[in-house]
Amino acid sequence: MKSIAVVGSGLVGIVLAISLKKKGFDVEVYDRSPDIRNIDFKGRSINLAMSTRGWKILKEIGIEKEVKALGIPMYQRAIHTENGEIVKQPYSVDGESAIWAISRGKLNKELIAIAERYGVVFHFNTPVWDVDLDKGYLYTAATEKDEWKGIAHDVIFGADGAYSRVRGRMQRQSRFEYQQSYLHLGYKEFIIEADDLGKYKLLPNYFHIWPRKDFMFIALANTDGSFTCTLFMPYEGEVSFSAIQTAEQVDVFFERYFQEIKELIPCFVKTYQENPVNSLVTMKCFPWVYEGKVALIGDAAHAVVPFYGQGLNAGLEDVYVLNKIIEEQKEINWDTIFEIYQTERKPNGDAIAELSYRNFKEMSESTADAMFILRKQIEVWFAQKHPNSWLPLYDRVTFSSDSYVQALELGDRQRKIMDEIMATENIESLWDSSFIEQEILKRL
Amino acid sequence: MKSIAVVGSGLVGIVLAISLKKKGFDVEVYDRSPDIRNIDFKGRSINLAMSTRGWKILKEIGIEKEVKALGIPMYQRAIHTENGEIVKQPYSVDGESAIWAISRGKLNKELIAIAERYGVVFHFNTPVWDVDLDKGYLYTAATEKDEWKGIAHDVIFGADGAYSRVRGRMQRQSRFEYQQSYLHLGYKEFIIEADDLGKYKLLPNYFHIWPRKDFMFIALANTDGSFTCTLFMPYEGEVSFSAIQTAEQVDVFFERYFQEIKELIPCFVKTYQENPVNSLVTMKCFPWVYEGKVALIGDAAHAVVPFYGQGLNAGLEDVYVLNKIIEEQKEINWDTIFEIYQTERKPNGDAIAELSYRNFKEMSESTADAMFILRKQIEVWFAQKHPNSWLPLYDRVTFSSDSYVQALELGDRQRKIMDEIMATENIESLWDSSFIEQEILKRL
Repeated sequence: MKSIAVVGSGLVGIVLAISLKKKGFDVEVYDRSPDIRNIDFKGRSINLAMSTRGWKILKEIGIEKEVKALGIPMYQRAIHTENGEIVKQPYSVDGESAIWAISRGKLNKELIAIAERYGVVFHFNTPVWDVDLDKGYLYTAATEKDEWKGIAHDVIFGADGAYSRVRGRMQRQSRFEYQQSYLHLGYKEFIIEADDLGKYKLLPNYFHIWPRKDFMFIALANTDGSFTCTLFMPYEGEVSFSAIQTAEQVDVFFERYFQEIKELIPCFVKTYQENPVNSLVTMKCFPWVYEGKVALIGDAAHAVVPFYGQGLNAGLEDVYVLNKIIEEQKEINWDTIFEIYQTERKPNGDAIAELSYRNFKEMSESTADAMFILRKQIEVWFAQKHPNSWLPLYDRVTFSSDSYVQALELGDRQRKIMDEIMATENIESLWDSSFIEQEILKRL
Repeated sequence: MKSIAVVGSGLVGIVLAISLKKKGFDVEVYDRSPDIRNIDFKGRSINLAMSTRGWKILKEIGIEKEVKALGIPMYQRAIHTENGEIVKQPYSVDGESAIWAISRGKLNKELIAIAERYGVVFHFNTPVWDVDLDKGYLYTAATEKDEWKGIAHDVIFGADGAYSRVRGRMQRQSRFEYQQSYLHLGYKEFIIEADDLGKYKLLPNYFHIWPRKDFMFIALANTDGSFTCTLFMPYEGEVSFSAIQTAEQVDVFFERYFQEIKELIPCFVKTYQENPVNSLVTMKCFPWVYEGKVALIGDAAHAVVPFYGQGLNAGLEDVYVLNKIIEEQKEINWDTIFEIYQTERKPNGDAIAELSYRNFKEMSESTADAMFILRKQIEVWFAQKHPNSWLPLYDRVTFSSDSYVQALELGDRQRKIMDEIMATENIESLWDSSFIEQEILKRL
């Protein structure tokens, strides 16, 4: 049996390792960091929202229940408008589908424990600086400057994230397409602690958003009564991380735009000044594989901005698809497996990058807008009447198994239809009429 | 005085080193390759065509004449059509401006000798694997796997080409914009040897092109009677490097499309089969500098496809601009110098990338097309009548000092005007009338 190396012990790397181990391969995971179980996880990453694509592979490898126990289902958005109102929007047409807020650190620790139970071998504190694509060597050393040691494996997976070293080597090949691009926005983490009784200060089963057009604040519940929060804001400009720095500036900013947060996070000034500003990258590349030797997966292959909550879900869907491809092979041929894998996944990686990028505008600009809310309402109303003809884009991306490519295409078609419908005179009063129903039907 | 490291002993690196040395800085050049003067230069690169932007800095540092002695001026294109005709097109409106064919290897050797005369120190066989941006360290070792040694300099220039290691380090910074993209075409080098008497087999003072729409062959003269030639062709498809491999296929291909070449290069089959196919990359990135410590220059900052003959010229213009900025400083402050440098050059790097990409279509598709030739003819006719109102795009890019950004903008405006003019009924017979002259004038 072939020996497989997985570089990176993030969520996608470990789930991949478990799925391969369950197929009988020898799997060893390498990571530059120490075992996360022994350290204080300093989260600089946005709480993840697990949805259908993520659950699929977890179910497949039999760990869905264990992971669900770590999370909190969110059935609706709670939109906190500037005038203090809260507008609730169910995530799905039936109101019953949820996305799951899970602490990234907690989940990571749990997955390592599960993987060890299955016999996956972990090498922590083992940075991989480079790979030899042809020989299948990983090169490791305490620091990049020291002499490197080569470790041989038959197959290597680069699950080492948006700044992947495995991809770094592939990028030096001729004809490797690559692009990395940053949003003008950065983000900063905050925590809403539980109250004195250990209770949530906001309703936990909601995805809380404070949209303010060019910037926004979000909060997702943890199981311990706290919320992990993120402020997204431009780096430069009138309202920006560079313009807001002193305690007074921070106070004025929250007083003006996020009064509610001031009350929820008494130490907001200290947190704002202490926590770093993190950047938001979109990364696309091609090819994802090198013969039957090396393959990129997850963020190492397609890093997206977090506004659709699909970064991890897309990575886990990579594992799901790869798993299926392996099962469909009569005899294991990694050249074939990798070729099918990248042909199937690359267009979907591009599609979710596009969808994620577009969704920032929707989340920050439109969620509080009356016409946007009406538009969503019409979609839900129509989808409830004709569930086989209309699945809103968000539902398709989040709760279906349709490919991201299909979601993007159908979403574009639906948007065009809704643009026309929203242009109807008196749409505000006509929207739930059979006239509008017919207007939509004849456009399908 | 500050000590400056230049990584890369290509043409831009050495010209930069000379210009800095002449300003009194200590300059050391590092290159992974051996001294090119001691080895047989195996050219995998297209012969360069030096034009106005390149000459400017060579003149500035007083070596224009020495370099011109290595080259051959080309005043016109000679277009070899499929039916065996040769159409000649002057490069400039006045017919007197030339681009200069120069052997890259020869020029490189000459420049090293000149630089040594000025006191530039060269470290050959010294690969730079990484840099420490803050400390200004270069890290070097015989191979990347060995223990690295750090060498300190005050300022580092990455002139290490499209695959720059210096840029590789900068790319790992947050918010570094990067993209590399390859054309679907590759290229292969050929040589037309001098005849038995040592004479040229084609007219030397012409840039010879055999355009065949999706592929083309070009030839530039060397001083020894030979021509360095390049076949540009898609990697895949009906007529492509992958479809044409056997001796018979090569023979059929040249027989059908390039009969003239068959006669000029008797060993065309052997050359075709032996020489590698090289790829064509466009690379854009930002920022180009790291504080006052590190700056990228030439291909390391902006790699373009070769179809405008501007790759080297753009790199040399970087040196020219940098040189001017340094001269304008009362006191040398590298933070300021680098900031001005990238602000001025980055938009021009993007513009020449765009112009170069577009020019492939023109060179391969249009040069043999009757309407294209007429269009050029009208432009020249009008430009001769109104030299202050109309400088054709090619002239502006190649023979002027207008920025590439201006060239792109003005070129777009001129194209729009010419599109309208070419749509005039009976343009073929009307083109040199005062009616057309007025039509152009009123659109300016």
